[in-house]
Amino acid sequence: MTFIHNRKEDLISDYLAGLMAAYPHLAKHPQLPLVYDKNRNQTQVPILAGGGSGHEPAHMGFVGRGMLTAAIYGPIFSPPTTQDIYQAIRFLDQGKGVFVIVKNFEADVNNFRQAISQAKSDGHQVKYILSHDDISIEPEKNFQIRGRGLAGTIILHKILGQLAGQGADLDQLEQTGFQLATQIATIGFATKPASRPRAALPLFELAAETISYGIGIHGEDGYRTVPFEQSEKLAIEVINKLKLHFHWKKGQSFLLLVNNLGTTTDLEMGIFLNDLQQLLEIEELDIPLIKMGKFMTSLDMTGISVTLCRLSDPTWLPHLQAQTDAFAWS
Amino acid sequence: MTFIHNRKEDLISDYLAGLMAAYPHLAKHPQLPLVYDKNRNQTQVPILAGGGSGHEPAHMGFVGRGMLTAAIYGPIFSPPTTQDIYQAIRFLDQGKGVFVIVKNFEADVNNFRQAISQAKSDGHQVKYILSHDDISIEPEKNFQIRGRGLAGTIILHKILGQLAGQGADLDQLEQTGFQLATQIATIGFATKPASRPRAALPLFELAAETISYGIGIHGEDGYRTVPFEQSEKLAIEVINKLKLHFHWKKGQSFLLLVNNLGTTTDLEMGIFLNDLQQLLEIEELDIPLIKMGKFMTSLDMTGISVTLCRLSDPTWLPHLQAQTDAFAWS
Repeated sequence: MTFIHNRKEDLISDYLAGLMAAYPHLAKHPQLPLVYDKNRNQTQVPILAGGGSGHEPAHMGFVGRGMLTAAIYGPIFSPPTTQDIYQAIRFLDQGKGVFVIVKNFEADVNNFRQAISQAKSDGHQVKYILSHDDISIEPEKNFQIRGRGLAGTIILHKILGQLAGQGADLDQLEQTGFQLATQIATIGFATKPASRPRAALPLFELAAETISYGIGIHGEDGYRTVPFEQSEKLAIEVINKLKLHFHWKKGQSFLLLVNNLGTTTDLEMGIFLNDLQQLLEIEELDIPLIKMGKFMTSLDMTGISVTLCRLSDPTWLPHLQAQTDAFAWS
Repeated sequence: MTFIHNRKEDLISDYLAGLMAAYPHLAKHPQLPLVYDKNRNQTQVPILAGGGSGHEPAHMGFVGRGMLTAAIYGPIFSPPTTQDIYQAIRFLDQGKGVFVIVKNFEADVNNFRQAISQAKSDGHQVKYILSHDDISIEPEKNFQIRGRGLAGTIILHKILGQLAGQGADLDQLEQTGFQLATQIATIGFATKPASRPRAALPLFELAAETISYGIGIHGEDGYRTVPFEQSEKLAIEVINKLKLHFHWKKGQSFLLLVNNLGTTTDLEMGIFLNDLQQLLEIEELDIPLIKMGKFMTSLDMTGISVTLCRLSDPTWLPHLQAQTDAFAWS
């Protein structure tokens, strides 16, 4: 596979330079691996999120008015260091504290927690929320739910970003974050594994014309591999898992977010969405908003993840629909 | 390769049903392969474009207030029939005529010209513009410029769509169309050829770690195949070809549109944009607007096309920046 790049060690900085040319509201911190919104409102609680690279447009694509104040990044599939996160919190805190959104992966959680604890002992007010939308299972561990932070994380970015922009304080953000995180569930599948740029081998094995359900976003294998039959079968598996999770009732309102995990074609995305939509109609759910596109990818993996967010608070839908400068949401 | 779909004969209708769920302003004509804007202004000249499928999000993603009134589609890589185009013109004409944007491919031009001529002999007022932004060459035909309609076509959709919405008549649209079409140039490359869904073989041959310059969007091979070296080399080739074409002068203003031909990762897109941007800075061009994303793809081809549009009329930039409901522009 040809991966278009220059020096391997410049992958992320070159990408970022390209983004800053296309989206002039983005700025890079001179020392830190941190992208922030030039036009940020200095009187609001800043929202920081981030993690490893390789998930583009996450997280830089969600920086902008009405979403993230800043995104911190690490190398491909590795979280930013504790020290960098700590310095980012110090940079962002203008007296109102900092709210942090962390994806539930062990390495991320360790680094973010340590950084937050260090910043707190310096006197910074910091609160955070763990995003754990993944409902796929570990078949070898008594079918334990994996609870990783996947594309559903972006819903936290949008709603908490909008709230912060409207003046919510740290406690209000934490409270909504807790409530919201329990209402988001994601499950996906891959038809082709990701490869690290210039790596000889893909990150997991997947035979031609097979599907892996419940894959992660760092090359983690899924819980089940089956031959591909048709799009509708994929949609049935996904909706069944989501139904088991939510125990939904007819008429309940959900946001549907259909995420391209990297190199799925738009044609496939639309075909699969149609199957989802038909199944959700049979369930008699109310789906007032559908977002389809690239939100959280895994390099060149081909596949789709499906996120539902139960709109159990009537203010969430307008927050999701509100304008933002973040280029990857609109 | 696994292609996510149900019945092969339903590829386009299933995709379209998915789009209509996500984007409620889109409607399908009951008989014709035609998607139109439900909220279209019936007092303006309607703008019709289209062509074969397999280029998603083109052209349905450009239907909406401020861009296309309707998009007509054929099967994958084949134009709509003369009869369908003719019926679409009849459907759209509410007394102000119809303006049509046609990509310069022989089969497309034949069908659209015949349909337009048939509609005219029925008394419909119809004008059209050929989009011919491709500046790649036929090495076996005295280096003749191919002049196919590629991603630059989308710039015609945006500016003429905006003008029509502001009340421009058929003559004004034709005049701007002629002027604009000469100011748009596109050149691209592929790192992986497209495959037809479920086809055994890709549409052209491309060895691992090689690049093909000047590919088309229907599986047409490029004018030169070279080993991949680095992103910057690709950018130099592309900018050199564009410079030869435009004979630009320092300080001239251009729109830069960087188009993902299908399955290029966002990381690669940003890295390549950074290289383009640096070369354009050396040329001392003024680039007040950069659009990056999927505009006109070729199924699962991996590669990028670069379009420059010289903003020789000062009204074009605000037309390009104006809001639109079309989901694939914003």
